[in-house]
Amino acid sequence: MSLSAEYKTILDNAIRALHERTFFAQYPEHPSPKIYGETADEDGRSKFQAALNNKFEELDQHRAEKWEGCEESPYTQEPLGITYPSFSVETLIERASDSFEAWRKASPEDRAAVLIDSLEKIKGRFFEIAYATMHTTGQGYMMAFQASGPHASDRALEAIAAGYEELKRFPEEVLWDKPMGKYNLRLHKSWKAMPKGIAVIIGCSTFPTWNSVPGIYASLITGNPVIIKPHPGAVIPIAIVTSEISKSLQEAGFPVDVCQLAVDTYEKMITRDLAEHPDVKIIDYTGNSEFGTYLEHLPGKSVFTEKTGVNSVILESVENIDKVAQNLAFSIALYSGQMCTAPQNLFVPKDGIRTPEEQVSFDDFAQKLVDSINDLVDNPKAGPFVLGCIQNRKTCDRIENAEKLDGKVWLKSRTIENPQFKNARISTPVILEVDENNQDLFSKELFGPIALLIKTNDTRASVALARKIAEEHGAITCGAYTTDPDMKEYISDQMSLAATPVSFNLVGSIYVNQHAGFSDFHVTGGNPAGNASFTNPEYVIKRFTWVGFREPV
Amino acid sequence: MSLSAEYKTILDNAIRALHERTFFAQYPEHPSPKIYGETADEDGRSKFQAALNNKFEELDQHRAEKWEGCEESPYTQEPLGITYPSFSVETLIERASDSFEAWRKASPEDRAAVLIDSLEKIKGRFFEIAYATMHTTGQGYMMAFQASGPHASDRALEAIAAGYEELKRFPEEVLWDKPMGKYNLRLHKSWKAMPKGIAVIIGCSTFPTWNSVPGIYASLITGNPVIIKPHPGAVIPIAIVTSEISKSLQEAGFPVDVCQLAVDTYEKMITRDLAEHPDVKIIDYTGNSEFGTYLEHLPGKSVFTEKTGVNSVILESVENIDKVAQNLAFSIALYSGQMCTAPQNLFVPKDGIRTPEEQVSFDDFAQKLVDSINDLVDNPKAGPFVLGCIQNRKTCDRIENAEKLDGKVWLKSRTIENPQFKNARISTPVILEVDENNQDLFSKELFGPIALLIKTNDTRASVALARKIAEEHGAITCGAYTTDPDMKEYISDQMSLAATPVSFNLVGSIYVNQHAGFSDFHVTGGNPAGNASFTNPEYVIKRFTWVGFREPV
Repeated sequence: MSLSAEYKTILDNAIRALHERTFFAQYPEHPSPKIYGETADEDGRSKFQAALNNKFEELDQHRAEKWEGCEESPYTQEPLGITYPSFSVETLIERASDSFEAWRKASPEDRAAVLIDSLEKIKGRFFEIAYATMHTTGQGYMMAFQASGPHASDRALEAIAAGYEELKRFPEEVLWDKPMGKYNLRLHKSWKAMPKGIAVIIGCSTFPTWNSVPGIYASLITGNPVIIKPHPGAVIPIAIVTSEISKSLQEAGFPVDVCQLAVDTYEKMITRDLAEHPDVKIIDYTGNSEFGTYLEHLPGKSVFTEKTGVNSVILESVENIDKVAQNLAFSIALYSGQMCTAPQNLFVPKDGIRTPEEQVSFDDFAQKLVDSINDLVDNPKAGPFVLGCIQNRKTCDRIENAEKLDGKVWLKSRTIENPQFKNARISTPVILEVDENNQDLFSKELFGPIALLIKTNDTRASVALARKIAEEHGAITCGAYTTDPDMKEYISDQMSLAATPVSFNLVGSIYVNQHAGFSDFHVTGGNPAGNASFTNPEYVIKRFTWVGFREPV
Repeated sequence: MSLSAEYKTILDNAIRALHERTFFAQYPEHPSPKIYGETADEDGRSKFQAALNNKFEELDQHRAEKWEGCEESPYTQEPLGITYPSFSVETLIERASDSFEAWRKASPEDRAAVLIDSLEKIKGRFFEIAYATMHTTGQGYMMAFQASGPHASDRALEAIAAGYEELKRFPEEVLWDKPMGKYNLRLHKSWKAMPKGIAVIIGCSTFPTWNSVPGIYASLITGNPVIIKPHPGAVIPIAIVTSEISKSLQEAGFPVDVCQLAVDTYEKMITRDLAEHPDVKIIDYTGNSEFGTYLEHLPGKSVFTEKTGVNSVILESVENIDKVAQNLAFSIALYSGQMCTAPQNLFVPKDGIRTPEEQVSFDDFAQKLVDSINDLVDNPKAGPFVLGCIQNRKTCDRIENAEKLDGKVWLKSRTIENPQFKNARISTPVILEVDENNQDLFSKELFGPIALLIKTNDTRASVALARKIAEEHGAITCGAYTTDPDMKEYISDQMSLAATPVSFNLVGSIYVNQHAGFSDFHVTGGNPAGNASFTNPEYVIKRFTWVGFREPV
């Protein structure tokens, strides 16, 4: 497969977009019949239904050693019944090693062609992936479509573009011609971008494609064979992605084992064995901090992590307090706070928040936030779809415990009915008021729909706490509300020292949770929330090594 | 200080050279009076002489807590008697922190202006630095001039150029304008390249400027204050460099503490305390593998190492065996094998080396190598100047022990007289024949003028050993001699898998030891010889973090 004119245009546009960092999307985010076809949604739903209680046979990973699967839908709380071919770590490594020869020798153009082709194939399965994502992660339909489909593919394309650019950054060969006075010293020099070796991508249960494809495509474009180790609870979305990558590889004459799926179960996880294998040179990981930190310390590997963070919102002064409360209510409720970018700590000065009309007291703001959340949750056209479901039962325990923490409960969690799924695992947000001295409580991530209102002495104290928590415990994003240019500059500067991006004065239909491909770096890599960033150039450069060759002419 | 047209041209040329990777040098490598002035050499020598047995007062690091120094010339084996201001780790960190505010807020243009200005100032002291380098490292005059002067400054300029390019790679601000159907979502976005924090550069005794300035300038251009911790035995060359950086900083109105020298003594080394300090975020290191590996494992820091490696030469077939022996003899003798790029293991098949005329037997080649080394060493116009001196007494012990190792001694080490310095510490190369099964012996670095002739079954066995040693113990460079295109391809491929650059068929006045700025990546970062490469883009990118800011328009 060579890089067709059509794919070359996609690649060139993506590289340009990487540098312009303005709005760019290769894959439309609206699940519109006009874009994706009149029957696309229904077809996707049917395909997903047909996959239930069956073997997933698409992968072409031959000679399955076992068939395993233990997914369960948070919407029905019943097993999906899908089983996947499963293999020992030795088999996976051996096959990856065998496939390395062909893949490492492919040109960047050929690799880009295969990978863009796979994205074009995946586009035809966005709706199926959406239903697969809903019934593993608990996301609402719209988020499941967007995050696992077009947004994930745009992030994958971003990684291809970034990798391709780095691979082509230096000349393949040159004449090095050094004047020595009476003669010239001439060397023919050439360079190879050598892939580091086998890459393992460790997925999470909440964003099984969005968080995995950047690492998958970044490792593949730079010539490394990949082994995708999904979360046992969220396999089917990335299994569909893997099967399409496999098809593109095979059509181009590459070994299917360049991209393998490595399914395991809660009873026998293979992640450590894979990660510690000496032939594994690259690891991408999304998940809890403890395991992420263990991976970061494995010697001799390039490790890219997105761990947990504690995201803050700093409230000082606003134009319209109601719009702010509504915006934050949505951010807290969206997918029940299970996004890595969900805000948790809302810092409000004890004297309240300045508005053009009046000073809004701490209590008045708290009540407005509670009311906004209730309005959203109780709106039958919005509530169930914005909240989605709780992916993991343990999150429900955490929500329950949150109400017993040392603080005033402004809003209790409850459940609401999803009209389509009567048995859906739903918990609405809990809002707790916490004293600024109670740092132990709010310095850790309380994953799920749990938000804390922290009463501080003043905004400088809010900023100091937000910075300290980001520096010590990590943060992936930060919201801030201020109409004062000096305060805005101060917040930017302080949070930048904690390597935390800041969104100012968001109201309306843009939320702190959203990080856009080709524009927002996702995770900065500069605080404990993770050491990697989509897609800082480092994200691709660390996956290969420049090796030079010289010879006199 | 703004970026003048003159400095802008230097910067632009350097950035272009980084990408062209053909021959480029900003600073002429010949110590020619026509270039540097009729009295430059004599002036430099006098200045160095005047520095002896005195306080080094140029640094403007105020309120010295102590004055210390313990350097000794390998040429005279007497103390230099120079003392430097010395400070506690706490003082160094506190001053670096204080200076961080101003430096991090300077624009990339302003930083580049200061740093290029310092290189222009350093150019005026190349001869003084050459004598300082001779009398600390034991290098010969020509190497001392070139490596510590123009070559080091070119590497520094390369780091400035690479850093500047990355800092300017993405726009400072954009309008993000997303069509939403009936309206557009508009965000003003901006980004800051946030320096990571205090950088520590740990120098070595053999190349006190060349191995340190890339890290110094890479950290400085990206906004980090630096603390330079030289090897106690080789301070004066980098002290001169530091003093010129200080002058440029101060002339531009920046705090002198942006670049501090941290001198210690063998009795009380401060390296660990500096490296482990939580405020130190970046470490550059050249030295032994044990300490380098310890540094690489310090959590939460960007660490760049050049450790030790074992460099191989693979001999299969040659055009002219005498020229090959002469070239290798020079590579082995140059600075008495104390370069990180010096060849150690020469792999020769038991059936010898093919030439157009005949098969040269193993023994005949060994004898030719011995003769070539003797010719070089005994040539009074070449020997003492190519060999230089042994920097560290321990290296003399290692040479002595080498002759007792398990192998046939083809050439014993001896001493020769340097006409200028009767007391110079000189040891000529030792050549040992070792069996290919004696891997323990040749898998470790035998630092100094020690070369091993390893008799292998055939060239494939030679390649396998060279690759294995590079993968397991590191290698910075590799030489190979073959006239067979298939074998050349095979060697390239195999050594590239060990991330080791290969120089083929070097004869005449180009040597495997030489890595040129703006063209050869020095150390690939892909094997245990080190995790960093001059100047792979990774070398500058890991010194800062991209942080984004967004606000609705």
